[in-house]
Formats: sequence, structure tokens, C-alpha cells
Amino acid sequence: MSLTCKAFLLAVCIAFASAHPSGSNHSPYNGQIAGSNVAQQIFLGRFISTPTPDQLSIEKGAVLVSSADGKGFIEAVAWNVTDPAAAITALGATSGTTVVTADDDSFFFPGFIGIGPKDLDDGHIHAPQYPNLGLFAGTLLDWLQAYTFPMESSLDPFARAQAVYSHVIEKTLSYGTTSAAYYATVDVPATNLLADLAFAKGQRAYIGRTCMDNQQYNPEYFRDESPEDAINKTLATIQHIQGIDPSGELVAPIITPRFAPAVTNESMTLLGNLARQMNLRIQTHIDENVGEVKLVAEMYPEQSTYAGVYDAHGLLTNRTILGHGIHMTDTEIALVAARGAGVAHCPTSNSALGSGICHVRKLIDAGVKVGLGTDAAGGYSANILEVVRQAFLVSRLLSFQEGQNSSLSVPVAESLYLGTMGGARLTGMEGRLGGFAPGMLWDVQEIKLGDWEYEAVDIFGWENWHDRVNKWVWNGDDRNVNRVWVGGRLVHQK
Amino acid sequence: MSLTCKAFLLAVCIAFASAHPSGSNHSPYNGQIAGSNVAQQIFLGRFISTPTPDQLSIEKGAVLVSSADGKGFIEAVAWNVTDPAAAITALGATSGTTVVTADDDSFFFPGFIGIGPKDLDDGHIHAPQYPNLGLFAGTLLDWLQAYTFPMESSLDPFARAQAVYSHVIEKTLSYGTTSAAYYATVDVPATNLLADLAFAKGQRAYIGRTCMDNQQYNPEYFRDESPEDAINKTLATIQHIQGIDPSGELVAPIITPRFAPAVTNESMTLLGNLARQMNLRIQTHIDENVGEVKLVAEMYPEQSTYAGVYDAHGLLTNRTILGHGIHMTDTEIALVAARGAGVAHCPTSNSALGSGICHVRKLIDAGVKVGLGTDAAGGYSANILEVVRQAFLVSRLLSFQEGQNSSLSVPVAESLYLGTMGGARLTGMEGRLGGFAPGMLWDVQEIKLGDWEYEAVDIFGWENWHDRVNKWVWNGDDRNVNRVWVGGRLVHQK
Repeated sequence: MSLTCKAFLLAVCIAFASAHPSGSNHSPYNGQIAGSNVAQQIFLGRFISTPTPDQLSIEKGAVLVSSADGKGFIEAVAWNVTDPAAAITALGATSGTTVVTADDDSFFFPGFIGIGPKDLDDGHIHAPQYPNLGLFAGTLLDWLQAYTFPMESSLDPFARAQAVYSHVIEKTLSYGTTSAAYYATVDVPATNLLADLAFAKGQRAYIGRTCMDNQQYNPEYFRDESPEDAINKTLATIQHIQGIDPSGELVAPIITPRFAPAVTNESMTLLGNLARQMNLRIQTHIDENVGEVKLVAEMYPEQSTYAGVYDAHGLLTNRTILGHGIHMTDTEIALVAARGAGVAHCPTSNSALGSGICHVRKLIDAGVKVGLGTDAAGGYSANILEVVRQAFLVSRLLSFQEGQNSSLSVPVAESLYLGTMGGARLTGMEGRLGGFAPGMLWDVQEIKLGDWEYEAVDIFGWENWHDRVNKWVWNGDDRNVNRVWVGGRLVHQK
Repeated sequence: MSLTCKAFLLAVCIAFASAHPSGSNHSPYNGQIAGSNVAQQIFLGRFISTPTPDQLSIEKGAVLVSSADGKGFIEAVAWNVTDPAAAITALGATSGTTVVTADDDSFFFPGFIGIGPKDLDDGHIHAPQYPNLGLFAGTLLDWLQAYTFPMESSLDPFARAQAVYSHVIEKTLSYGTTSAAYYATVDVPATNLLADLAFAKGQRAYIGRTCMDNQQYNPEYFRDESPEDAINKTLATIQHIQGIDPSGELVAPIITPRFAPAVTNESMTLLGNLARQMNLRIQTHIDENVGEVKLVAEMYPEQSTYAGVYDAHGLLTNRTILGHGIHMTDTEIALVAARGAGVAHCPTSNSALGSGICHVRKLIDAGVKVGLGTDAAGGYSANILEVVRQAFLVSRLLSFQEGQNSSLSVPVAESLYLGTMGGARLTGMEGRLGGFAPGMLWDVQEIKLGDWEYEAVDIFGWENWHDRVNKWVWNGDDRNVNRVWVGGRLVHQK
């Protein structure tokens, strides 16, 4: 395809999209976030976070959160206060300000994966695959054919999709995931529905319509018919999503070519142009499986690496999130770092599908941003806490394999960092998500460890808080997630 | 030490033990199992099991369980009956026989790890380490010093031990673990208490007092003072345990040298003799960590392998359960297979401590019996279902590493087999535990998948039962374990 032809195609696409301002007429939400925000709130109790990869910060005190601008930022912090009256005084709040207290067996922790008012990522999660959690068949390429494509194609928008998408958002919120980047399907109304639901339920979400226009690779029942078709449909979802949330604070579109084999040369170029022109985030997969790497090398013999294929099409930017990145060469890592792109580390999926172990330390040392992704349903769980655990475990195996090199380990605190601050960095939300500093958004989960007789985590009472956090990481589940806020709004309560 | 001296020492030990018939006067249970058995019960519903490593059997029907002999065996099975009246008729039971029904969203599954009326193992679980679940420090040898020994030494028998041991038994029962082999501590009263509690709560349990008489290796505050001390104390717990359950059906002693570096040449010989003379099971660790393997080689230069050390002391028998077995050489594997010993595969621990990946397929192909162990708190979870998951995951990584050799994978069904039938084989309980055939004990968990809105497992309603089992394996937890029976006795109800 010539450059002229490409430019023409893009013009057609944009014209089409302008004439179809919404890809769906089914949104019941009319641009309003359900529920109300409280103008000012104080949160009082124990605050635990990972300001740096090697630091588990444990503080007691209070923070003042203002939602006056609709965003729910931390206005002020006062450590070492322990009662509501002192907190109100120390924070300079007006008397009568609501004080939300975490009990002494509880703590506030940054919401998992960090996504911002403008844009975000939690790594990535294939929303329409959610019903397939725990179902595998062979390795990646087999699994796509056996489970993923049939499931995704079965999601007609307003029956099954409504049930599944509602559930995946509610469930991930119940896991403390305040931000998520979703791969939806090729279907426009279903993708728009996912955006509507995330917006209504108050989860920060990047919503990507999955582009799949390679007629040779993709199944006939589940693909875009042409590059034009792919771009038109992508534009339709972008306009819908920007229609329900013009600020891009809560939900925003993300350009989503599934992965190089599933898309054509033409659509990749058009998607790259679109991302650049509209300043959009991009998400795709890279170097997940050795068969996939070989296939991409055969399809793009003119490129020396897989990352080079995306780069040649304008898809490798400082707003790009690459899923997996297991088999990246040093050259590739350097290119990804130079472009400012990041990798969503997906160890649950990588182990379940037998794809290999991502060398996270090497990526970090090379300057690549790293966050965590569930890759559900390639990963068997939609819970980032499970990904935190597996990031530690596979790093320990890698350390052993590489001559017992313990510097390759990703300790618990660093794994939590990847699931919070790492996600924020991955999406350009550094400084806005992942911690408790003034100016940061109140995207927070309250973790309750409670009575060991009835909970997932066994707390006997003699443990210090460092040990309690470790116990939570290793055996915690949604039963420990007591409340979840996004932008100061309570979006989940146990 | 000369042979004559050894023989003398053993005679002394046995004489001592005879004069002290119980190591503890604190048992409140007087040899009675709390609760009552029902003489005959019918279980009606869906029965899922793994009769062979590659088969997930899914049947509907009914089984007749008799507890007339106090053991709770399956007397008869009738597949394809679906209502109580038909079940009573088909099973030839008297009218009015109690029928326990699993709802249509539930199924009966063999209790995890399988341990029998005479003796057993679930792999192994370090009961006194339980409060340390989720706490790690470095690799094996560091971790023992930093966490394990201080914790174990802190368990004075009737305060902390009562709380911890009660909890670990109740919690593992709530996970569907009907049989467990426990490493207790060096302390006699605490070990006896663990046996008392397992007996009272109705869990099949091998209870091992941990022998640690190497004065150079073990901390001063937590060791046996001499080989004599180790044997005397071991005999005291054996007599206590055999006192509360003379049949050995529910609880039984197991000879437990912690691992080769922690015990002396002398105590190993004495323990081997004791196991032979009293026909006792043996449990210990082997080839968990490369540093440990090196240490053993230095300590026993006359032996060519680690397994050879145990073999030379009479500790490698067809009643021996070896924890871990990661770094076994082919020679060692052949020796273990020849002796009929088995390996408790502990992947959660092996990954958490960075010990490596056990080559399960190689062990199985060589004829070594393999079951699963949580190795809690080396493993972060006391739930065998988590071990089932990790057995699959690490096998997938191993398959990838060894040239994408998929034959090395341990699929979900085989992993479940290891957690049930494998445990039965490991402990010589083959044919008595792990399935639903006539003659087998009714050690069973009822799994309820329930409503996806409120449960750990997301069941949307369209899944077939094969897929439901996979979903349970990957996301199930104690919330799905509705009821648990051991020997026909209901020992846990949600």
C-alpha cells in the first residue's frame, strides 16, 4: 500500500468516525458517573505503600482527600496523628469533615496497577476471555484457537457481554484493582459496553477494541475484514469512549493491535498514525512465545527484531504497553527502553501457558518501565495479588537457574511496587498513582486482616506489620479487601 | 560408635520407653474420637476423581458407606442413580438409611493427599512453622535460622502450641486435606499434643517428633542433646500416639529425622533400626537445595549420594517419604525407586525458597512414587490445592526450559492425581484412599462451585463439568469446600 493510499484511508476513517459519533446507542449512563463524590474526606489509620522498589513504607496518620474537582486528590498528609479530632486539626480541615477510619487490623494500600485520570494501564486483561479463567489448551497459539477466539466471538453485546463485563469489573474491583487496561474484542458495541460499564462502576480503565485484520491468521468468524474495517471500528470506539468521558480521567481508549501476527502491515501503520495524531496509549503483545517470535520473523523478514516491527509502524512509543516481553533480545530491550515503552510482566500467564520466565531484572536495569498484568484468561486469575506472588516465585526460579544469582529476585516489596508504582510508570501516571503523597489520586484499597479463625490470612496476633504484609501477600484474597476507592469515590465494599 | 554400643543404646532406649508409656499427661481425649459415626450412609450426587494420572472421572450416582467397623469404607457403588429412593434400592440399603446429597452445583472429590487407617502421608507439613506462612528469608539454610528455629522453639506445649496446632488442623481440614503427615518439633509434649488434637478433630495424621541431635548444626536452644536423647524422646511420642490410637487407623507415629545435616550418624542408625523393628513410616528431606547437597557430601564423604546416606542407615524403605527431591542424580533416583521409597513434591516451597524445579516426570518414569506436600511454611500455603496448581505451573516452565518438551508437563488431572492417589501410593494406602471404588475409605471433600457472584470461582452456567473442575483447581479456595469427611465422619462443615 502506498503512502498516498494510507493517507487517503486515514482520512476516510476519520470522516466515517465523525459521522458516527457513538458506536453504540446502548449506553445507559449518559456521561455521568453513578454515585456521588464527597467534597472532602479524611482517611485515618495505617498507610502502607512501596515508594521505591526496595522499600515497604508503613505509616500511621491521616490524609485529606478533596473531590471538589471531581478527581479525588490527596490535598495534605499528617503522619503520626491517631484520632479524628487531631487529624482534622493537623490537616486544617473544617470541623465536621467526614473521617473514614481503617481499624487497627487494617491498612490502606494503593489500588493495584495504577491508572490515571488521563490514561493508564494495569498491564492488560483480556476482558472477554474472563469466563475462560483456568481453561488452558497447549501453548499460546493452540490456546488462542481452542479457547480464546470461540469465547470472544460468542460475546454478542447485550446478553453474555453484559453479564461477563459487569462481572469482570466488579470482581477486579473486589480484588483492589482500581485501574485496568482491557483488551476487549473486535466488536464495537461490546467494546463500547465495556467502557460504559467501567465508567458507571467507577473503575479507571483503558478500553481497547482489539484489531485483528490479518485474513490469513485470524479465524473467519472473528476478525476485521480489512485494514479499513479495523480502523473504522477503532475510531467508532474511540469516539464512543471519549463521548462518555471527554476528560479521559476515568475511561479512555487505547489503541490495541492484538499482536503482530494478527494484524496487517497496513493496519499497523494506520493505528500508529492514529495513536500519534490523537495522542493515545497503545497496548499489544510482544515476545510471549518462541513460536510467535519465529512467526513474526517470517512475516517481517525486513525487520531484525519483533520490537522493530512495532517500531517501524509507529507503535513503539512512550505510551506503549507491551505484554509479556519474555524472549526479548538485548537489542530489542535497548530499543524498547530508548522509545520509553514499558512491559507488562504477566508471570501467571507465562507459567500457565509454558511461555517461559520474563527476565524482569534485565528489563529494569536497561531502563524499561515494568508493571504487572494478569493476562487473564491466559493467566488463570484476574487478581493482581496473585500476579505479585507469581512475580516473586518465578524470579526465585530464575535466580536459581542463573547460578543462584539472588540479584535477579523480585522480592515481595518490589513485586508490590510493580503492581502499584510500576503500573503508574508504565502508563505515564508516575506521581499521580501508587502512593500517598500530596497530589496523588485517592485510588486505594483498604486491606483488613481480621480474625485468623475466619479469614484467608492467618494472623495470630504476635506478628509485626512487616510480617503481616507478607502474610497478606502470600495468602490474601478478596476477603481481605474491605473497601476500594477510585478518585475518592467508594467503588467496592465487602 | 561401635555396633555393640549402638545395640546397647537401642536397648536402653526401648527400656526407657517401656517405663514411660506416655510422653504427656495432657491429652484430654482418652483415646476416643469426638463426635459419632453413622453406621450406614449413602452419598448421592456427582463423583469426580482421578483413577489414573491421565483420567478425570466424572460420574453421577450413589455410594454406600458403612462405619460399622469404625473405619468408614465404601461398601457399594451404584452409578447413574439420581434420587434417594433409587439409590437405597440400587445399593441394597435398608429403607431409612441417611442419604447425604451433593447439590447439582457440587461434587464429591477424594480428600487431599490420602492417608490411611494404618498409616499415611500427605507429603509433609511442618506444623509448628504454620504461623510463619508467607515469611521468607533467603534460601533454605538461611531461612531455617532466621524464621523456622526461633518459631519452633517458641512453641511451649500448652499455650501457643494449643492455638497453632488446633488452627493448622482445622485450617487444613477446611482445605479438604483429610490426611497429613506432620513434622512436629523436638518437644515431646508439643508433639503429643499435635497427635491428640488430630485424633480429636478426626484428621488422619502421621505425627513425627523431629529429631535434631547434631550439636554442630542445630541451634543450642532447639535440639536433642544426644543420640540417646533423640531416641528416648522419639520413643516417648511413639508410645503416646500408639496409646491414643492403638489401631493406627487415624493417627500414627512417623520416624522423622529432620534431614541429614541435622542428625548424627548414630541417631540415624538408631532411628532406622526403630523404624524397622516397629514397622514405622519414615519421613525426611532430600536434595532440596544445592548448598544442602554439598553439605551432606562433605559430612558423608564415604557415601556417593545423599540418598545413599539414608540408605546406609536403614532409612530408605518402602515406607519412606522424602521431601523435595529436586537435585537427585539418576543414580539416586534408581536407588530410591529400588527401595520403594517415594518423593513428596513441594513446588510452592521449592519456588518460594528458590530451590529449583523437581523433575517429577523423571521420577515417575523411573518408578518413584510421587505425592504432593505443602512444606508449609517453606511453602507459603497449607492448601494442597495451591500445590496442585504450582505442580502444573512449574512443570510447564520445566517443559519450556527443556526444549519445549511437553511430555514433562504435569497436567491438571495428573496434578490432582498426585494430590490424592499419589499421596495414597506414597504411604502404602493404594486402593484404600484417593477414589470411590468399593473398599476405599470415605475420606472425601464436597466441593461446591455455587453462584459466581459470591464465590472464588467464576461459574457462569454454560461450562461443562470438565471445565468446572479446571476452574475450581485454578481459582478455588476453602470457600468451595462445603463439607469434609474422614472415615465417614463429618469433620468439617463450612
